[in-house]
Amino acid sequence: MRTEISTLGEFGLINYLTKDIQLKHRSTLKGVGDDAAVLSYPSDKQVLVTTDLLLEGVHFDLVYTPLKHLGYKAAVVNFSDIYAMNGTPRQITVSLGISKRFSVEDIEQLYVGIRLACEDYNVDIVGGDTTSSLTGLTISITCIGDADKEKVVYRNGAQETDLICVSGNLGAAYMGLQLLEREKAVLKGNKDVQPDFAGKEYILERQLKPEARRDIIEKLAKADIVPTSMMDISDGLSSELMHICKQSNKGCRIYEEHLPIDYQTASMAEEFNMNLTTCALNGGEDYELLFTVPLSYHDKIQDINDIRMIGHITKPELGCALITRDGQEFELKAQGWNPLK
Amino acid sequence: MRTEISTLGEFGLINYLTKDIQLKHRSTLKGVGDDAAVLSYPSDKQVLVTTDLLLEGVHFDLVYTPLKHLGYKAAVVNFSDIYAMNGTPRQITVSLGISKRFSVEDIEQLYVGIRLACEDYNVDIVGGDTTSSLTGLTISITCIGDADKEKVVYRNGAQETDLICVSGNLGAAYMGLQLLEREKAVLKGNKDVQPDFAGKEYILERQLKPEARRDIIEKLAKADIVPTSMMDISDGLSSELMHICKQSNKGCRIYEEHLPIDYQTASMAEEFNMNLTTCALNGGEDYELLFTVPLSYHDKIQDINDIRMIGHITKPELGCALITRDGQEFELKAQGWNPLK
Repeated sequence: MRTEISTLGEFGLINYLTKDIQLKHRSTLKGVGDDAAVLSYPSDKQVLVTTDLLLEGVHFDLVYTPLKHLGYKAAVVNFSDIYAMNGTPRQITVSLGISKRFSVEDIEQLYVGIRLACEDYNVDIVGGDTTSSLTGLTISITCIGDADKEKVVYRNGAQETDLICVSGNLGAAYMGLQLLEREKAVLKGNKDVQPDFAGKEYILERQLKPEARRDIIEKLAKADIVPTSMMDISDGLSSELMHICKQSNKGCRIYEEHLPIDYQTASMAEEFNMNLTTCALNGGEDYELLFTVPLSYHDKIQDINDIRMIGHITKPELGCALITRDGQEFELKAQGWNPLK
Repeated sequence: MRTEISTLGEFGLINYLTKDIQLKHRSTLKGVGDDAAVLSYPSDKQVLVTTDLLLEGVHFDLVYTPLKHLGYKAAVVNFSDIYAMNGTPRQITVSLGISKRFSVEDIEQLYVGIRLACEDYNVDIVGGDTTSSLTGLTISITCIGDADKEKVVYRNGAQETDLICVSGNLGAAYMGLQLLEREKAVLKGNKDVQPDFAGKEYILERQLKPEARRDIIEKLAKADIVPTSMMDISDGLSSELMHICKQSNKGCRIYEEHLPIDYQTASMAEEFNMNLTTCALNGGEDYELLFTVPLSYHDKIQDINDIRMIGHITKPELGCALITRDGQEFELKAQGWNPLK
């Protein structure tokens, strides 16, 4: 079944997609349907705002990305930015540019994914803009969140001797992408063959349906830990760590042996004959949290599941470097994803 | 001079465009450069959020739209949505998708326009996203504003016998667009001829460099008038008035003889042999304010410059209609711009 979007028009489509949205937050006074959404935050909270623009052919490939997954991911990557400030996402606006290739049912699938993410993370959809596009799909999501006034964590607070920590593991989403790209090339024009993804489900899920680390933020709060600096890893560990060091005016040492890597990531890298450490350092889209804490928190951090200490912050003169398993020092380079290179 | 964007990369370009941005508002604690912007609003304010997605070839034509003007307009149309809630715009995020066709200098021009609008309207640029695009230019702007808790004006508050008011005049931006489109067609492949826009400056400016009606919001506040409903006119008077009536569950009567129309709009419509009333009712992009006030405010409104009373709100059963100069009644139709038709 295919319903052309032109049969509904702009307001018809918006009504269709948003008609049964329930607003969950006290801070949401008015959602979709006026010139602007109306929010009300208590004065002990700071308001956080982040935005992401996703373009077909640049950020996603619909050959292997189901629209529902794409919607989910588009929302979650914004939530991740709010968590990375030690905040909680509360509202999003969703703007879509839609070419004639897409039907009402397609956009509904995309919206199902966005709404699922909003349910999972307890976020309200409060507005957006829907328009036609001459070419492909454009998704622009803005997320608003809040944080306690004294607990917002910036990128620029890392101190000498701080421990550098990452959640989860690194490089998995990147290896998932490599796998999908390989299968796409192999299957080109060959519709009868089904790709065999057995044993690779985890890296595919990391690429296609990433999660934001709300659980880590909650665990840190429970342990009464406010990181000195934090950001989420979207462009690769090296690139993000260099942001923290640059903005904090510090250097760092991280240790190859401590980089957390899943075995599926490792076996896929081997299959592709790629250097695993390079994948872990520069593979993007992990949406794990990278943060620093005072050295005195070592034992507290050790008690929290799924956080790994990978190194420490140094004087700025020492630069940013990786210490390999055999004790060599390599300067870190931001080789991560750069959409304008 | 043309600098390729790839020579700067994403972070280089962002730095270049945003390096000397001064934050003006107490409510802006952190702007560009972290995972999210950090804002702080006092508890007697409500936070307003609106967003617009502009795509090349759908919303603008760079053949006759200077990038600086485009940037200015892209920001101002968002401010207009905040004023339409009886609020004040405070911050914007700016996301850009940029194809290889554009140079650093091009994007700088766009940004000069955005920053000029932000200076004129006293708004901070606090974040965004910058990425490559396979096709043309994409601009997604989100604006955050505030309003006194008791003074936010929605679309759904119009009451029977309320006066319907509009600021400024209608149809000018649409006639400006018609003129530009005609000249584009005439001049196609004919680079030596310069179009003669003498005497048509006003309608061109309304199309290329619209302003948001901050002055009207200020005048209403000064006169101690809080409208019962309000929105800005971006898709044409008919379409917007029908939104207000539908959401307020009311009908309306407006009078052809009271529609405010500039003489340049009128003379252009005559030149194009178009019905002037149709242009005023359905021409988009005026960014004037449409609002309703209690009948008792008649004299107060009459004293305010540049506001016209064009009709009144009725029972819902009476529907929405225009009364022509010769006393005939025509049902209003939303023939305004619909980007998905």
